[in-house]
This record gives sequence, C-alpha cells and structure tokens, in this order.
Amino acid sequence: MRIVLVNANTTSAVTDQLARLARELAGARVTIEAVTPSFGAAYIQSRAEAAIAAHAVLATIADALEAQATSPPQACIIACFGEPGLFAARELFPLPVVGMAEAACLTALQLGSRFAILTSGERWPSMLDEVLRLYALGERCAAVRALPRGGLELGAPAETLRRLTELARRTVDEAAADSIILGGAALAPYAQALQDRLEVPLVDGLAAAVTQATALAALALPPPGRGSFRRPVSQGVSNLHPALTRAFAAPPDPVGGAARPPQEAPGGT
Amino acid sequence: MRIVLVNANTTSAVTDQLARLARELAGARVTIEAVTPSFGAAYIQSRAEAAIAAHAVLATIADALEAQATSPPQACIIACFGEPGLFAARELFPLPVVGMAEAACLTALQLGSRFAILTSGERWPSMLDEVLRLYALGERCAAVRALPRGGLELGAPAETLRRLTELARRTVDEAAADSIILGGAALAPYAQALQDRLEVPLVDGLAAAVTQATALAALALPPPGRGSFRRPVSQGVSNLHPALTRAFAAPPDPVGGAARPPQEAPGGT
Amino acid sequence: MRIVLVNANTTSAVTDQLARLARELAGARVTIEAVTPSFGAAYIQSRAEAAIAAHAVLATIADALEAQATSPPQACIIACFGEPGLFAARELFPLPVVGMAEAACLTALQLGSRFAILTSGERWPSMLDEVLRLYALGERCAAVRALPRGGLELGAPAETLRRLTELARRTVDEAAADSIILGGAALAPYAQALQDRLEVPLVDGLAAAVTQATALAALALPPPGRGSFRRPVSQGVSNLHPALTRAFAAPPDPVGGAARPPQEAPGGT
Amino acid sequence: MRIVLVNANTTSAVTDQLARLARELAGARVTIEAVTPSFGAAYIQSRAEAAIAAHAVLATIADALEAQATSPPQACIIACFGEPGLFAARELFPLPVVGMAEAACLTALQLGSRFAILTSGERWPSMLDEVLRLYALGERCAAVRALPRGGLELGAPAETLRRLTELARRTVDEAAADSIILGGAALAPYAQALQDRLEVPLVDGLAAAVTQATALAALALPPPGRGSFRRPVSQGVSNLHPALTRAFAAPPDPVGGAARPPQEAPGGT
Amino acid sequence: MRIVLVNANTTSAVTDQLARLARELAGARVTIEAVTPSFGAAYIQSRAEAAIAAHAVLATIADALEAQATSPPQACIIACFGEPGLFAARELFPLPVVGMAEAACLTALQLGSRFAILTSGERWPSMLDEVLRLYALGERCAAVRALPRGGLELGAPAETLRRLTELARRTVDEAAADSIILGGAALAPYAQALQDRLEVPLVDGLAAAVTQATALAALALPPPGRGSFRRPVSQGVSNLHPALTRAFAAPPDPVGGAARPPQEAPGGT
Amino acid sequence: MRIVLVNANTTSAVTDQLARLARELAGARVTIEAVTPSFGAAYIQSRAEAAIAAHAVLATIADALEAQATSPPQACIIACFGEPGLFAARELFPLPVVGMAEAACLTALQLGSRFAILTSGERWPSMLDEVLRLYALGERCAAVRALPRGGLELGAPAETLRRLTELARRTVDEAAADSIILGGAALAPYAQALQDRLEVPLVDGLAAAVTQATALAALALPPPGRGSFRRPVSQGVSNLHPALTRAFAAPPDPVGGAARPPQEAPGGT
Repeated sequence: MRIVLVNANTTSAVTDQLARLARELAGARVTIEAVTPSFGAAYIQSRAEAAIAAHAVLATIADALEAQATSPPQACIIACFGEPGLFAARELFPLPVVGMAEAACLTALQLGSRFAILTSGERWPSMLDEVLRLYALGERCAAVRALPRGGLELGAPAETLRRLTELARRTVDEAAADSIILGGAALAPYAQALQDRLEVPLVDGLAAAVTQATALAALALPPPGRGSFRRPVSQGVSNLHPALTRAFAAPPDPVGGAARPPQEAPGGT
Repeated sequence: MRIVLVNANTTSAVTDQLARLARELAGARVTIEAVTPSFGAAYIQSRAEAAIAAHAVLATIADALEAQATSPPQACIIACFGEPGLFAARELFPLPVVGMAEAACLTALQLGSRFAILTSGERWPSMLDEVLRLYALGERCAAVRALPRGGLELGAPAETLRRLTELARRTVDEAAADSIILGGAALAPYAQALQDRLEVPLVDGLAAAVTQATALAALALPPPGRGSFRRPVSQGVSNLHPALTRAFAAPPDPVGGAARPPQEAPGGT
Repeated sequence: MRIVLVNANTTSAVTDQLARLARELAGARVTIEAVTPSFGAAYIQSRAEAAIAAHAVLATIADALEAQATSPPQACIIACFGEPGLFAARELFPLPVVGMAEAACLTALQLGSRFAILTSGERWPSMLDEVLRLYALGERCAAVRALPRGGLELGAPAETLRRLTELARRTVDEAAADSIILGGAALAPYAQALQDRLEVPLVDGLAAAVTQATALAALALPPPGRGSFRRPVSQGVSNLHPALTRAFAAPPDPVGGAARPPQEAPGGT
Repeated sequence: MRIVLVNANTTSAVTDQLARLARELAGARVTIEAVTPSFGAAYIQSRAEAAIAAHAVLATIADALEAQATSPPQACIIACFGEPGLFAARELFPLPVVGMAEAACLTALQLGSRFAILTSGERWPSMLDEVLRLYALGERCAAVRALPRGGLELGAPAETLRRLTELARRTVDEAAADSIILGGAALAPYAQALQDRLEVPLVDGLAAAVTQATALAALALPPPGRGSFRRPVSQGVSNLHPALTRAFAAPPDPVGGAARPPQEAPGGT
Repeated sequence: MRIVLVNANTTSAVTDQLARLARELAGARVTIEAVTPSFGAAYIQSRAEAAIAAHAVLATIADALEAQATSPPQACIIACFGEPGLFAARELFPLPVVGMAEAACLTALQLGSRFAILTSGERWPSMLDEVLRLYALGERCAAVRALPRGGLELGAPAETLRRLTELARRTVDEAAADSIILGGAALAPYAQALQDRLEVPLVDGLAAAVTQATALAALALPPPGRGSFRRPVSQGVSNLHPALTRAFAAPPDPVGGAARPPQEAPGGT
Repeated sequence: MRIVLVNANTTSAVTDQLARLARELAGARVTIEAVTPSFGAAYIQSRAEAAIAAHAVLATIADALEAQATSPPQACIIACFGEPGLFAARELFPLPVVGMAEAACLTALQLGSRFAILTSGERWPSMLDEVLRLYALGERCAAVRALPRGGLELGAPAETLRRLTELARRTVDEAAADSIILGGAALAPYAQALQDRLEVPLVDGLAAAVTQATALAALALPPPGRGSFRRPVSQGVSNLHPALTRAFAAPPDPVGGAARPPQEAPGGT
C-alpha cells in the first residue's frame, strides 16, 4: 500500500520527522511518500496560515499524484493537526484523504465517553474548536488545551515532555477525559513517552491518521459519482500551480473499486 | 492478528455468514474467531431484544477470551448494527471493541458531509436514532431508512437487492447524502452488489468494523488505568455466566502496550 | 393504584429500603410491590453491570406481571438512578414504566433553569452523561457530581450526610443550579435531611419516580398499536427466563384505556 | 389538594370548559379553582398576544392567591398551550407552576422516542418551536402541526374531529412519532375522541398539566432560597395591578416543606 | 433617519441617559425619540419584571408610533439588555425592531470565535442563558458573568468601573473570549472607559443596537405578508392600553419598500 | 467611509457588477473599492475552489490595504456568499471584515424565527451547511436550496427570475421560513425583482454585507490585543504574494479606536 503524507507546513525537517514516524507506525508493507508544500507557513499558528496551507496542500497533493501517476497511492494523509484543506482535497482527488485531528477524534470516540485534546500554540484551542464545529464532533470533546509555545519553539525535549505530562495529567483530572489526543506535527515524537507517563490511552494524531488511512484504503470505495463530494466541474481556474490546474481540468482515473464489474445479487434466485 | 467477532443474535447461520464475509474483508493475515451467544433473540428487532443482547454479548466475549487465553485476540467486533453492549464491553475487556454502526459512521464521516443509513426492520430507524444520540454522531446523519421486513424475513435475494437499490437511490436524492451506510448483519451480503448500483460510496457496516478493529489493534493502546472506562471494580455479581463472573472478579492481563517500559523524552537532553 | 418497583441491583436490603421509602412517599392509596432481580450486580457501578441489569430488569418485570396477572399494576418504576432497560421495558410491557433519573430530570425542569445531579460512585457522572445524551435532556443540566464511594460503601450516615451537604452546596455555587437532583438508590434515605440543609429544592429520584408513575397511571393511556414502541413481534428468543420468553411470545392484555369504546366528537352535530 | 387553573385567554367560556375538564381529570380529591385574566386576548394567536398574556397571568395568579390566602393552593396550572409567563410565575409565586405544553412534552418523553405536537392556529407551530428552544426540549419533537384556524374559529365539532384525526394520522406516519401531543385549550375537549381514533398514545396538554401539578404538589418542595428562581427582590414597580404590586413587595408565606424542622441523618451514628 | 428607543424600565433617568448616549453614537443624521413605559419595574431584575415589561414595551411602542404617525420612524430599539417583547414587537409593528442583547451578540459573532457577556444583577446570567436559548445563539457564548448588584444600585462610578474591569479581564482569561459584550442599560455609560482598559474589543449593547437599527432601516425591507411574523389578526383583545388595542385592530401603513412597484428581471431579454 | 469589497472569484465582470450594486446600496457617503483576486476560480462552485479563494482573498486584501495605506478603509467585505477566508482575514487585518452569508444570516435572525437560503450551484447547499456549522448559525435555518446551475451559467435573466421566484415561494411554503436569504454574487442583481414577487422579506447577501460593514465601521472597535483573533505572530512564511508576506511580517497600524487615550470613569467620584 502506498500513502502520500502531505505536510501542511513548509518546514521540511518537520516533514522528514513525520515521515520517519509514519513509517515506523505503518510497518513494512506500507510505503509512505512524504511531501512538503512550496509555499506557506513554516509552522501553522493561525487561521490565516491555515487558510493559505489549505491551498498549498491541494497543490502539493496534485503534484504528488502526478509524480506517482504510474503507481498511484491508495490514500493521502494531511499531516497537520487541524488539517487545512481536508474537505477540499476529498472533493478534488480520487483517493481517501485523512486528517490528523479528525482521525484522532474518530479513534478516541472508540475508547471512551469523552476525550481531551492537547496541542501546542496558544491559538490552536480556539482554532480546533472551530474545526470540531465544522466536523460536528465537539460534543464528546471535554477540553482542548495547549502548551503556549508554537511547534518550532517548544524548547528542550525533556522540559517539553515534563510540561506535556503535567498538562495531560491535569486535563485528565479536570475534564474527566477517558483518553487524551496528542495533536500537532511537532508533538508527534513525544507520543510514546507521554503514553508511558499517563494512565489513560493516548491517541497520537499521526498514528491515528496512518491507521485510518490504512482502513479507508482497505475498503477501496469508489469515488462518488454524485453528491456534494463528487469531483467538481470547474467553470475555470487561473494562475494556479500547473498540477492543480490540471486536477481541476482533467480528473485522473479513479482509484479503487469503481471499475469493478457489477455483481449479481448474493445467492441469486 | 486475531479478531473475535461476536454476533449479537443467536442465529448461528448469521454468525457463519458474517464470519465468512469478515474473513474475505480482513484478508489472510487476520484470523477471525466468530462466536454466537447462548441466549437472546434470533434476530434483534426491538430495544428489548437489544437490551438482552448486550448482556449476551458480554457473556459471549468473556467465554471467547477465556477460550483464547493462551493467544489472546487483539480486537473484538460486535457484529450487529446498533451493537448492543458496546460501551459495557469496552469497560470490561482489555482489548479494543468495535461496533458496526459506530465504525460505519466514523468511516462515513471521512467521505463527505452527510451520510444516510439503510437497514432492515421497521423499528430500527428509531432505535438507531437513539444510538446516534448516545454516540453524539447524529448531526451529520441525513436520514435513517429501513426495508420494512426484519433480517430473517427479507425474502428472495434478487428482490431484496432491487428494493435496497431503489431505497438507496431515493435516499441519496431526498436526503442529499454523500454516502450510504448499509447496516444490519443480514444485509452485509448485499454490500458489493448494492455498491455497484450506486453512485455514492457505500459503507458496509461489517467492512467498516473490520477495518476499524484492525486500525485500533494496530495502535496497541494500553487499557485505561483511570477514567470512566477503566476496568470496573464490582461490589459483587451473582448468578451470571461463569466466565462473565470471572471477568468481573479477575481481570485478565492487559493486551497491548501497557507493559512497555517507560521511554525517555525524544532526543534526550 | 398498584405500582411495581423493580430494583436493578440484586441486594434485597436495598430493595427493602426503597420499598419502605416509596410507600411513605406514595401514601396509603398506592400499593408498592417491590421486586429484586435474580442475577446481576449487588450495586451497579459500571456500564457493564448496568447492561446486565437491563436484562435482569426485563426478566424481573416479566415475573412480577405474571405473578400479579389477576390484578395488574398500573405502573412500574425501575428503581435505579440511570434505570437500565427503561426504553426496552416500555416496549415490552403494556404499562407505564418510569425511571428515577428521567423522572427526576423532568421534575427539575419544572423548577428552574438548570439543575445539577448528585450521586455516588465515581464512574456514574460519566455514565449519567451518556444517559442524558440518550434522553436529550443534558442541555439544562449544569453539572453531574458524585461522592467517590459506591452505594454499598458509603460509610457512616452522619459522615455521608456531611459530605453530601458539602458537595451539594458547592455544586449550587459553582454550577449556578436552581435545583439539585439526588440520584442513586443508596442515597434516597438522605433526601429529607439534605433538603433541610439546602437553600434550593432537592429532587429525590425515588420521590420523583413515584410521582411520575402516579401521574402516568392517572392518564391511563393505551399502549401504542403502532410506532417504534408498540409491543415487538420477535423473530424468536431462546434460553431466556421463562416469564421473559412468554412476554415476547404472548403479550398480556393491555392495561388502561385501550379497551375503551370510541366516543363521539365532543358536542356532536 | 387545591389547584389554581389560570386561563391565559380572556374568554371565560374557555375557562369554564377547561375547569370542567380539569375537574373530571383530577378527580374528587382535588379542588380546581379556575380564573380568567381581566385583560388580554380572547384567544392567543400571536407572540404579541402571548406577551401580554404573560403579564395578565401574573396579575391573575396574584389575585387568586390573595383570594385564597386562608387556604392556599398547592399548585398552579397556566392553562394555555405555550403557557405565557411560566418561568416568571415560578419566580414570583411560592407554589409549583405547571404549563400545558411543558407538562405534555415531559409526559410524552416517557412514552417513546419522539413525539409530535398538534394544535390549532397557523402561527402556533412557529411559536411552539420557540417555546421548545427555550425549554431545550425540541430534540425529541418530530413535528409540530396545526389546524389552520384559531381556537375560537374551529367550526363544527364533528368536522374538527375529522380534521384533527386526519392530521394526527398523517403526522404519525410522516414524522414517525411514538405519541401525539394535543395542545391548545380549545382542543382539549377532543382529546378522548381523538385518542379513540389513534393507534399511538395521545397526550392531552390539560390532562398532562393536571397530573404534573398533582405530582409537583405531592413532592411539597420548598421554594428556593437561592438560585435564579428564588423570589425576586424588586427595585420597585409602578402602576401594576394591586395584587401584583403586593406580590413583588410582600412575599406570601412559603407553601410546602420549607418550614419543616431539620432532620438528623438517616440511621444516625 | 428616525429611531424610536423604548426603555423597558420605568425609570426615566435611565431613558434620558440611554437617549443621550444613543444620540452620541448615532450621529447628527439620526433622530432618536426615547420613550419610557407607564408601568412596570424601575429596573428589571427578574423574569417576572421582564414579562411585565414585554407588555409595557408593546404599549409604549404603540403610543410612540401613533404620536409620530405623520413622520413614522424607520426602526425601533428595545433599550434593555435581554429586550422583553422583542419577537412580539416584530410581529405587531411594521418596522424593524432591534434588541440590545441580540444586536450585541450578532456584532460579537463578527469579531471572533467566542464572546462573553458582562452585565449587572445576579439573576441576569441565568435569564440571559434563556434568552440565548430562545435566539439559538448560545453555542459561541463562552460565559455570562454579572456584577452582583442591580442596575440602580451600582454605587460609585469609579468603583463600578474598577469592578467591571477586573471582572472583564478575568472573564477574558478564564473563558478565552475574543470579545466582551457589555449588557444592561445602567452599564452603557461605562463602555468607552472599559474598552480603554481591555485588550479585546468591547461590544456595548446600546451601540450595537443603534448600528443594527441603522443597518436594518437602510435595507428598507417590506413587512412580511405571510409567515409567522406577519401582522397578527387578533380574535379580539380587551382592556388594553388604547393605542395597543388599536395596533391589533388597525394596522398602520407599511414602512419601507412594500409599496414599491414590481421591477422587471435584471437585464431583460 | 471607505469599504474594500473583495470578490473571491476571479471574474472581473462579477466584481464590477458587485461594485455597482454595492455603491447603489451604500449611498453617496460610502466609497466602495472593489478588487479581484489574481488567481483562483472564475466562479466558486466547490470546496476546492473555495479553499484556494481563501488564500486569494487574503492576498487581495493585503494588496488593497497597501494601495490604500494613506487613507485606509474602515471595513472590508468578502463578496462571495460563503465568504472564503473570513476568519483568517479577521485575524490578519486590522479592520472589520464582513462576509455575505454571515451578514445575511445575522440580518435574517432579526426578522423572524427561521430563515431559508436560496443560491445557485448544486453543491452550495451542502457547502453552506458546513459554513453554518462553522458559524453555529444553523439551528434557525429552515432550508438551503439552490438553482442547479452555477453562477456563470444561469441563462436568460427572465427565466432565472422565474425559476428563483418559483423556488423561493416553494421554499417559504415547505420550510415555513419567515424570510428568504438570497446568496451568491451572481444572484445579487435579482434581489429587488425577487423581493417584489415574494410575501416575506428578502435578505440580499450583498445588501446585508454592506449594512453590516457600515455598522461595524461605525463602532470603530479596536483590533484585539489578545485572544485568538489578535494579529498572528508567524514563525515565518515563504513564497507568498509580497503584500501578504508583509502582512504577516509588519502589521499596519490599527484602524479605529485603539489609539484613543484612556478615559476616566463616567461621572468621576
């Protein structure tokens, strides 16, 4: 199985780290192709940077799918917690697209009654509140908390782990959370160590995204031929990245089961 | 990987069919152990039968885990759409437990804006409305519709497929659904043929459950040591199935990552 | 009027206490028949025990209705706060069924803007959160708080009353609650003393259930002949308690108004 | 037991009819004192008339409580479906106050999963939608439907019954309602005949109000001494009905349990 | 442009102050006609006083519109935060009616993700909670807090400003609010000074009402000819203020665009 | 007053038309500066095009603010119904930013109980459903309906008006809407003619945006100095439009009241 992992930040060191972690999580049978946008924010800390990243993610996926046209991937991960461009990418590209925050929430829903989210960057709790409203997944979220510093300014790992652990334990207590979601590309490396220090399950956004991508790829569902997520027919785009322009103009072939011949009813008559 | 698939109905022919389909879906690397409750309803069509089935599911899982104690499974599927006993089983047993309706909804959330559910048995739409309220997943559900007859009375497969197709197409139109969830053990055999006749993705509850079980098993999360889903400490139970009594009394060893030694912070200092 | 009071716990001392209190509350014109399940948990403290209790409650009601067939009761109370099996019992049995938590919430809604719930057992707040989701009654609940110990381990009454009072007063302050609901069979004896120490109305779950049962019985509504709560037609049950099997197979006669002859329009023409 | 029934409309013939029906429903042990406002709408059909009625209801209750000061009533019913002034009356007067719509919804919640409301007057569905938002009880309401004509213009009873029956049956079908609430003072006389023609339980707003008033009176809860529903301390009122002015100035003695001496903890130590 | 500003309190000094502030906010091109009810509460502090005020507001607007019949105003402001009678006035009078709390919330929604409300009078937070439920605007409200004293008992201005500032800053911190709404006629004079001490935007209810009234007047929308807010056709009212009686009986001419001749489709063909 | 109107589509003819209509609506005292993005979709019909437009809107506003630096505008309108980049622009730029859909909904909330939205392009109802979820404004939206064709393919105006009128009338009937919102840049020219054919108020998105922009500008609120909408401090952006890069790097001076000197408390002491 091949998965495209798209960082939504432009810092390639973050991409490399995410790719390494994703490969560990995915195991040997999965190939992870990690790509970095050519424009945008070094590390998204605001709605404005996230809005730009949504465009960049689309352009980057378009490039990646063209580059891999001869052996197309089975799924795509937007490797940023809060995943700019998620719904847009699902419309435009004929493969399952997974977001770290969404995947983590869906995983946490299967672990208890309420979850809490931990991330870094003081604006993210409010931004994630909006993401949860959009996804209609907020009712079982007990709290969203953040380390104040952004992802590229976390400081020494031991100190960051200490602060994360303290924040996680306090959140479990105060919010009566049955699990903790760890969000943010920069925090993914802390997942295992933080789990070892916690008494509730820790859902790492990257791990959840890898497993959900694998799950969706395994289902091999056909892209929609109708409904509001079928590939859009544009009335024209201009001055976009060439591969993105082509994505609007000439849809690549469907991935997965769409070409399957119709079957008879089970058991026949 | 080993998965226990627990039918919540007592009809072993349904169990056998679910097991066969689950094995096809899961592939060769996954072992599916399918079990049938020793008491309850032949095919659940009411809240009363579902309530009894929740107990039966717990007893059946307890038995299955004891029988497989030397090579414990990594996940459990409650193979009934509406999955009686889901939250209870998550509390009591130290492995991920997946429900068909929940897994299907979580999958469908990743495919579009709104989904619709199709099942059989005229009381199930109202029952599933309650399930969605409990899960807080109803906001993106556009409709729940059912063939009037229950799962053991569906009639000739070709006719059933024709009716399902007609109902699915009408639902897509009327409810503006981006995907259709097919629920109900008895409808699982129709999934592929129905997908071939639909223009939107069809999420089969059983397939979704198998992929979510695989996803959760891959995460190998430790069972909770605190929070409202840690293993309950009972003040005493009486006159239960022996294995179920033992499940309350003597928790089996944790499955998964709990025994892992703590790691240092990433990168050290 | 005759009311069946079904304890969902197997501890008959709790049943006796509930029966005594219910008789005081109901007054001389109401006969309370209290029954105890033959299997399940001594005192429910977890979702797993509640799931088993739902089955036990159904079996126990079935037995009680058969035993009283010659003079059938007009209502049934599931005397456990969180009331396992409530919706299922409403489907299966042709008389009004009342739950302590539901009755208490409906009462509290008539007393102010927001209520808070107090109970015992540290897992119950999360479990009641699920109950309120199922009932769609959570929006006006300001808080759910619990004494940490379970119902059979409360300790000395004076100390328990002191702790309850302190918790209740703190909850009124912090949650701006207009009333306090006291939940849990084991806490019912404290209702009057706690009320005397509080400045807001205290809604005792048992008292609320008795008055709601009386209210529903007085309405003498016919059991539904259609809709999702009409008596289920099972496709077969097996290995259940004999009276429960018979409840699925041969519905007892309707209680209440169903046999009333149709009346003319008021006033005629 | 004594109950004050306050019509919110100024038509005394409606009051008389409501009183007669309430006395039938309440039985011989309950005294119903029915009162009519001295100002307002003949039959409320708009938000503007309902707003005026809220004031009129307060003035009318104030009068009634003064007139019955020597033997104060144990509960009050605002006998208008949509019950103007409900929360205000609960603040101002030291006895339980019950509304027809609220009481009917709370009753219907105990009968199934979803209810539908039937009333008369084409603006009432939208007005009741607002009432349900205020009460936070809309989630389980499947539909609100109305006969187009207002309560004083219903026409011939036989024809009205025919139209109500047709509307009720259609609503049960289309909205999958488990019960029907019949709202509106003018429709109360049709309750029994409509029930006889329906296959689901019919909750008559007046009957529900009588039983809920009885239930609350039986609980004998003390009026709140704190919280947002304790008796308001006004900074001065002017030009109001004399009894209403006095209600703000000099609170009557509490009804019910507030004067009870504190009890010891149950069981002592 | 002419705007009628209706105080809902009977204290004319408050009306004068509101009028002076509104004129400063509205500028020279807007004429503010401020009116005071002839009955009701000096300063509304309870649901009971608010219910009476709703009636008083309707009577006062009816009077004002008759007095200005020769040059009718283009909009009306109910100058009380929580605005009794808002929906009723919209039904009854053929001009836009604006409420201070609603206008402030709609303004704050355009400034950030979540807002918090500050007011005075300890019962108002709970009352505003009900107002937000009625308006369905509560989801983005992070907190409602109040100075304990009512609007006529605030005490020395410098001390009040100090307390308001302290409460506002604490609320911004604790509730993560992006803006603060200042509610209550008595607090309007503090708006500018409080804004100068805060780091988030302060939305003054009166200023928001003035700008929303101006905005609605500029749209010059016709009064509805159908729907639940068209002018009600009463079945008769009695013993009301004469102008209010006339408002039900003889609707004044429409304000705004209703008399405009139909236009052709843009561009023609 | 100066307002920047940013089309989110790249079709300058649409910009010109919006500018012309906005100038008519705003009157002589308001200067409308209309700008068109340099990249993106000719007319947004999908989430993918909307995601790109959010970036384009930010770049276009950045350019416009630099071009008008010597006489900065007081407000900005994102002139696309569904307004890509709304929250992001509010973060990044120190002036009020208004969206057509949001402004229309806030206006409609002041006109009745429920509104319905009409637009063009068959995917927009689902997209607007997501916008309403994000804004938490969906509860009072009765329906979202669309003409099937996109904004640049509407066809002959007379035929479009006929279809719009028919759809609007049907929607008012079926959804019991008190007002109709007309959304979409391409439909703005039909607003007046459609209003003339409807019996409920028609809220044109562009007119609502102009009036809300005027209202916010009149309030002259300072940009936030804290909270999640204060100007973001980026950790670095790359390869963006130069003016957009500068917007992240060097915030322009605040517009409005931030520079005002603190005032004393009203009235002093």
